[in-house]
Amino acid sequence: MADWLAALDRRAELRAKAGLTRTLRPRAAGDAVVDLAGNDYLGLATHPEVTAAAGRALSAYGLGATGSRLVRGSTDAHHALEDDLARWLGVDRALVFSSGYLANLAAVRGLVQPRTLLVSDAHNHASLIDGCRISGVETIVTPHADVDAVAAALAAAPGRPAVVVTESVFSVDGDLAPLAALHAVARRHGALLLVDDAHALGVTGPAGAGGVAAAGLAGEPDVVVTATLSKALGGAGGVVAGPAEFVRHLVETGRTFIFDTAPPPAVVAGVRAALRLARSGDDLRAELAERAALVVRRLGGAGLEVSAPDAAVVSVTAPGPEAATAWAADCRDRGVAVGCFRPPSTPDSRSRLRLTLSAGVDRADFERALDVIVDCAAVSARSEPGLRAPQSRTEDGS
Amino acid sequence: MADWLAALDRRAELRAKAGLTRTLRPRAAGDAVVDLAGNDYLGLATHPEVTAAAGRALSAYGLGATGSRLVRGSTDAHHALEDDLARWLGVDRALVFSSGYLANLAAVRGLVQPRTLLVSDAHNHASLIDGCRISGVETIVTPHADVDAVAAALAAAPGRPAVVVTESVFSVDGDLAPLAALHAVARRHGALLLVDDAHALGVTGPAGAGGVAAAGLAGEPDVVVTATLSKALGGAGGVVAGPAEFVRHLVETGRTFIFDTAPPPAVVAGVRAALRLARSGDDLRAELAERAALVVRRLGGAGLEVSAPDAAVVSVTAPGPEAATAWAADCRDRGVAVGCFRPPSTPDSRSRLRLTLSAGVDRADFERALDVIVDCAAVSARSEPGLRAPQSRTEDGS
Repeated sequence: MADWLAALDRRAELRAKAGLTRTLRPRAAGDAVVDLAGNDYLGLATHPEVTAAAGRALSAYGLGATGSRLVRGSTDAHHALEDDLARWLGVDRALVFSSGYLANLAAVRGLVQPRTLLVSDAHNHASLIDGCRISGVETIVTPHADVDAVAAALAAAPGRPAVVVTESVFSVDGDLAPLAALHAVARRHGALLLVDDAHALGVTGPAGAGGVAAAGLAGEPDVVVTATLSKALGGAGGVVAGPAEFVRHLVETGRTFIFDTAPPPAVVAGVRAALRLARSGDDLRAELAERAALVVRRLGGAGLEVSAPDAAVVSVTAPGPEAATAWAADCRDRGVAVGCFRPPSTPDSRSRLRLTLSAGVDRADFERALDVIVDCAAVSARSEPGLRAPQSRTEDGS
Repeated sequence: MADWLAALDRRAELRAKAGLTRTLRPRAAGDAVVDLAGNDYLGLATHPEVTAAAGRALSAYGLGATGSRLVRGSTDAHHALEDDLARWLGVDRALVFSSGYLANLAAVRGLVQPRTLLVSDAHNHASLIDGCRISGVETIVTPHADVDAVAAALAAAPGRPAVVVTESVFSVDGDLAPLAALHAVARRHGALLLVDDAHALGVTGPAGAGGVAAAGLAGEPDVVVTATLSKALGGAGGVVAGPAEFVRHLVETGRTFIFDTAPPPAVVAGVRAALRLARSGDDLRAELAERAALVVRRLGGAGLEVSAPDAAVVSVTAPGPEAATAWAADCRDRGVAVGCFRPPSTPDSRSRLRLTLSAGVDRADFERALDVIVDCAAVSARSEPGLRAPQSRTEDGS
């Protein structure tokens, strides 16, 4: 009986030896850290209109939704947000979930019949991968952003229903999928296209409507979009958006929709206020684009290998996993939070820092943070990994 | 390409013909409905201390947590709630998730190795079932609350790691699992016991610590507890609680923990305030027990078949699915919200109303609601199902 705990301990020790321990590190309200690690791209999580709208709903409805959406959990606030999301994304209908993870599980499963072939990009998020797994149908994982491989997979399964599954802006490297080409290939083969727009919503596209809208695919009848409400929209939860028939299908059969408590009215009301600000936030998006260019100039100019960011996520190659951990820890010690991604949390074998940009971070602080990152890169490269305790300083996450 | 939408329409029509359409029906803030359908058992969702605590955290932190727990999403508010939950439940450590659904997926998957046998109660919640599915290991579904069947399943797999998976208070009928007997059987065979305490937490057990604590199993090293924060605690989210080694395992490997945005600080702060109230809420639990007895007396006395409630969930048998739908609709028309469960949302072939009790509902309103339910039962039994449109009035949910 106690065996299982000893076994868990042994597995934890193996992770520790590989430098793969993950430690929760709580932050205080209003900590002074310059945040280049979070996903509050437009700085809306703390916007006074957002918190005020959430506060009003908190007073009006109380904290929890008190039930699943089909029982007592649907409030006017949920429906108002869903209407606004559908209009913004240019689709028939949108359906809100209490997490983007649950939205992706529902979307993949809802698109699948017993004979369906899923064609999934190798860099897809864990929630899409789990959606494929729980669907229980054949899944072909294609190399990252490889349209020809997708076409070949579809061509090899003529007459079978198929769904191409991809993110728009990928979460680790911040690169944009070739959505228009993927859609053309999918349509040619009668397949559907499912796009997780989590890191693009609010950041790219006309009026910030995301990567699908930017690719001219908004409202296409063979496209389903998912996204989170927890990144540019500054709140929590997820959304599935697409044809009315599909949303109805999820309302009536989606297990992670039907059997889950609805998200709190205060959260959806706050997100709705954030949506209004995001929609009219071309100035914020211009600021993000400027900052992305600045990261590439400053870090690239210092000799670092920097990705060409398509949105607000920038990847900076580290020499190896221990150097990445040390680098991120040094930045944190100097008041700058950056993401640190190492195998197996990276889709390839490279370790890197992930920088996420937020228009909510003071511009001068941001520029100073870039200097800190460059400084710490030099220090980390000279450091002796053996002298560090990387297992206590790790940060990988979503 | 448009085929899939036509196919979805055909499936919707089949559901409609079977009376299985589900329709979202939003409620306004402060609607006058007497709520015997929600899960706010202690009435804490609208408690001023809960909304005030949430409001303070909203001001301090903003709306969203802005990242996953391992990146930027861990705040002092999350850790304070986890410490309080662990103390209340009598376990080493507790870990909060953004949904009870995600907590259950993580708990089941975290307990499983490749050769593990899962032994799952036939009435288990969708999230536990999905946890078994996504774990990809052999799962034996045993008849509801059948300790002998569990023992037989374990005895037939000697030497294999095994996990017995059950709810404490079941969500549809409100009956309590034989937890002590299940634990004894599990221990005899070296198996672990996973208990979803969602409908018991705050409602049963010493200081409301739930069904596991009531069975004397709190802190046992071979028991893992999950629960929601969205029912008696009036908020949103879920929790996994158990040995420190297991919680560490989830922090470092749990996909639905690592790759999900942390729940909003305002929600966890509100839930923490609710926990304090629930812990000292013996008066609220006494009131719930009185109301449960009253339901049985009043409805049973009127000739209805009523379950013997072990907590705050009561099941009332309906003559059939259409009568159940009509009954619930009539109640709603008279200002009383009740749950309506029909196959395939019921674990057996029976249709029923599900009544959930809340200490937050005015006592006189509650007693009047029971009269309405009895009245409507008589009317519904006489009604001509063919004259109704059950497909537009359905309400099943979690």
